[in-house]
Amino acid sequence: MNDIMNIIYSGSKEGKEYFDTLKNRQGKADDRVIEVVEDILKNVREGGDEALTYYTRKFDCPNIDNIKVSKGEIKAAYDKVDKDFIEALKTAKDNIWNFHEKQKENSMLVPSKDGIVMGRIVRALEKVGIYVPGGTAAYPSSVLMNAIPAKVAGVEKIIMTTPPMKDGFVNPNILVAADISGVDEIYKVGGAQAIGALAFGTESVEKVDKIVGPGNIFVAMAKKSVFGFVDIDMIAGPSEILVISDGKGNPEYIAADLMSQAEHDKLASAILVTTSKELAVKVIEELKKQVEKLERKEIILESLKSYGAIIITESIEEAIEIGNIIAPEHLELMLENPFMYLGYVKNAGSVFLGYYAPEPLGDYMAGPNHVLPTSGTARFFSPLSVDDFVKKSSYLYYSENALSEVKDKIVKLAETEGLTAHANSIKVRFKQSRE
Amino acid sequence: MNDIMNIIYSGSKEGKEYFDTLKNRQGKADDRVIEVVEDILKNVREGGDEALTYYTRKFDCPNIDNIKVSKGEIKAAYDKVDKDFIEALKTAKDNIWNFHEKQKENSMLVPSKDGIVMGRIVRALEKVGIYVPGGTAAYPSSVLMNAIPAKVAGVEKIIMTTPPMKDGFVNPNILVAADISGVDEIYKVGGAQAIGALAFGTESVEKVDKIVGPGNIFVAMAKKSVFGFVDIDMIAGPSEILVISDGKGNPEYIAADLMSQAEHDKLASAILVTTSKELAVKVIEELKKQVEKLERKEIILESLKSYGAIIITESIEEAIEIGNIIAPEHLELMLENPFMYLGYVKNAGSVFLGYYAPEPLGDYMAGPNHVLPTSGTARFFSPLSVDDFVKKSSYLYYSENALSEVKDKIVKLAETEGLTAHANSIKVRFKQSRE
Repeated sequence: MNDIMNIIYSGSKEGKEYFDTLKNRQGKADDRVIEVVEDILKNVREGGDEALTYYTRKFDCPNIDNIKVSKGEIKAAYDKVDKDFIEALKTAKDNIWNFHEKQKENSMLVPSKDGIVMGRIVRALEKVGIYVPGGTAAYPSSVLMNAIPAKVAGVEKIIMTTPPMKDGFVNPNILVAADISGVDEIYKVGGAQAIGALAFGTESVEKVDKIVGPGNIFVAMAKKSVFGFVDIDMIAGPSEILVISDGKGNPEYIAADLMSQAEHDKLASAILVTTSKELAVKVIEELKKQVEKLERKEIILESLKSYGAIIITESIEEAIEIGNIIAPEHLELMLENPFMYLGYVKNAGSVFLGYYAPEPLGDYMAGPNHVLPTSGTARFFSPLSVDDFVKKSSYLYYSENALSEVKDKIVKLAETEGLTAHANSIKVRFKQSRE
Repeated sequence: MNDIMNIIYSGSKEGKEYFDTLKNRQGKADDRVIEVVEDILKNVREGGDEALTYYTRKFDCPNIDNIKVSKGEIKAAYDKVDKDFIEALKTAKDNIWNFHEKQKENSMLVPSKDGIVMGRIVRALEKVGIYVPGGTAAYPSSVLMNAIPAKVAGVEKIIMTTPPMKDGFVNPNILVAADISGVDEIYKVGGAQAIGALAFGTESVEKVDKIVGPGNIFVAMAKKSVFGFVDIDMIAGPSEILVISDGKGNPEYIAADLMSQAEHDKLASAILVTTSKELAVKVIEELKKQVEKLERKEIILESLKSYGAIIITESIEEAIEIGNIIAPEHLELMLENPFMYLGYVKNAGSVFLGYYAPEPLGDYMAGPNHVLPTSGTARFFSPLSVDDFVKKSSYLYYSENALSEVKDKIVKLAETEGLTAHANSIKVRFKQSRE
C-alpha cells in the first residue's frame, strides 16, 4: 500500500473490486435534474428568444441584451489573445483537418444484372450545433475537435452556443478557436436552454440537425431528451487513460501521462497495467515527485486515490486483455514494439503507440479527434469523426425485367406477413391484380 | 374535396397546415409509461432471469418455464412453414447480404513525415441484441434486415428476443427467418424487460453492446433509457412514403404504392406530389377501386384521410424541394428519367427510381435495408447498415523527432487551457521539466 494509488494483482479479489468501482463511477441524474431540464426545454420551445434571454440573465449574466456574438467581438478577441497561441491553434487545425479529410466516404453505386442499379448517397448534414461549456471547462481545443470534422464533412452552417461570463463576454480564446475552425454563428447561451434552442429553433437561433459537444449534467440530460428530434453525439461519462508497459517503460513518462488524465476530473481514472512490480514502484515515486509542481494537484491526488490503480499482470497479452475489458478512452502502449500488439486491441477510443505519443499529443495536435468514447463505451462508440456529420440515403432502380424476375417471391413474403397492399403494389404492375 | 385524401396546392395555407399535421404525428410517451419502463428495467437489472420469467408469464404466456428457444423448436418451425416462403427468404437474404457487403469499410493508415503513422481501426461489435415484436407486427423480413448487416459486419454473437405467443411458442416464420439470418440465440421475452436483459445481462441472457429492432412505446422508451450503457439504433416514429410524379405516371401503380405504406399504421403518411391535377384525380379513383380488395382497408382509409395528401406543384423541382422538407422515409421518383433528379434529393431514407421500383421491392427483396429513418429524421439519420455494427478506434505513433517538432505548440495550448499536467507530459520527455 502507498498513499498515491493502489497496486493490485491481476485476478485478485482487489482486481475484481476495482473493476466494479470503475463501472459504478457514472452517477445517474436525479429526478430533480430531469424535471428542471424538461421545464427549461418546454419554456424555450414555447418562449423562443425571450426564454433564452431570461435564462441567460438568470444563470450567467444579469444585464445581457444581445445573445448573438458580433463580428466586432470576434475581432476584439484576436487582439486579446497570445500570438503563439493562435499559431499553435492553426497548426492543430491543419493537422486535424488533414486527418479528418481521409475519413470522407464516397457515395456508392452497385450495378447488377438486368439493368439493376442501387447504392447509397453520402451527404453532409445541413446545420450542426456545437455546445461549448463556460468557465474552467472552456477548452479551445475542443472547439476545433468538434467543428473541424463538421466543416470537412461539408456542413453548411455551424452554430455554436456557450454561456457568457458575468461581464457578458465570451472567453476570447474560445472565440478565436471558433473563428479559426469556421464556426458560422455564436450565441451566448448555456445549459439546457442552449440545447432547447438548437433542437427546436427560436427567432434568432436556427434549428439544427445534430448537436455535439460536452456539457454538465443539465446539458447531457437535455441532449438525451431531444434525441430523436435531432441527432446528438455520444453520451459522455468520466474518462480514463490506461497505460500498458513492461519493465522497459520510462517511469517518468508514465507518471506524467497518468496525471495528464487525472487532472481533468476527480472522477477520471488513470490506470497503469504492467508486468513489472519494480516499474510500478518507480512510477509511484515519480507521481509523488511530479505532482508537487502541478496546478491541479488536489484533483490529481483525489482521482489517483479513488479511481486510479496499478495492475500487475503476468504478460503483456494479459495486460491488453485487461485493456479490452476496461475499454479505456485512451490506451497507451508504452512498449518497444507497440505495433506488434495493436492487432490485439479490441476496445479503446484512441491508441497511443510507443514512447513519444503521449495523450496530450492526441488531445491537442496530431490530428485524430480527442472527442472519444469514455467509461467503457469504446465497446460500441467511436471517436468523433466526419461520419458523425453525414447522413446516407439508399437508392434503387429496377428495370421491368428485373422486377418480373422476383415478383412472385415479393408477393409470397408480403402475403405471409399479411400485408396485401404490399403484394398489390407488385401485382398491379403485372396485371395479376385482375386475374 | 373527396373522401379519400386531400388535394392541396403547394404554397397554400392548407399546405402549411398539412406540414404541421405531419410534424405533430409523433406522440410523446406519458409519464406513466416512463415510470413503468424504469420500474421494469430496475427489476430486471436486479432480479435477472427470475424477473424475466415473471414478466413473460405476466404479459405473454402464463405457463412458460424455459425462456430460451431450443434447437428442436427451430427445427420444428421449418416443418411448419411454406417451402416457397423459405425460398423467397433465402433469395432476399442473398440480395441483402450482397448489398451490405459493399458497405464494409477498411481500417485506415495515414503515414506522414518524420515517421508519423496514424489511422483508425474498424472492428465489428462483439455482441448485438435484436428485438422482434410479437403479434401482428412480427415481420420475418425485419429479422433479415436487422440481423444480416450485423453478420456482414462480423458480429460474433447475435441474440434475439421476442415475446412468445400465449401457447409458449414463437411464430415459426420468425424462427426460420432468424435461423436463415444467422441469429445465434433466441429468448422468449418481450417489452421493456427484454431491453433490460440485453442491456444489463442476466444469468442466461448475455449483456450486448448494441440493441436494434422496432418495438412498441415501452420498448422504445426502454431503449432510450439504456442508451449509453449500450448503443441503440435510431428512434423510430410513424413512417411515410412520398411519390413524385408528372402527368406521365401510371395512376394504378401510384395508388398501389401509396397504399402499401398506408396499410402499416393509422399514423403512416402516404403523399403524392405531382405537377398534374389530372393525375391526382385518376389516383383518387384508383385508390377507391383498389382499396376494396385489400385486407387492411380500414387502416388504409384512416391513414390516407388523416395523414395522406396529394400536393400539386408547378414543377418537378418544386416537388423535390417539398420532398426535401418532409424528408420522407421512402421517396419514389416515378418519372421517366428519375436519375436526372437524384442529385437534387437531399433528405430521404431510401429513393426508389422509375416505374418498376415500388417500395415493397425495397421492403423485401432488392438488398438495401428497409430499416430507414422515419418522421423527417432522414435529415440526420441513415438507413441501418454495416456501419451500425462496427466501432472505430484511432491510433497514433510519433517518433521522438516528430514530437520534438510540435512540443512547444502542445505546451502552449495546454498551458493556455490551464492544464499543466498535460504540458508536463510533453516537458518530461524533453527534460524541460527540470529547467
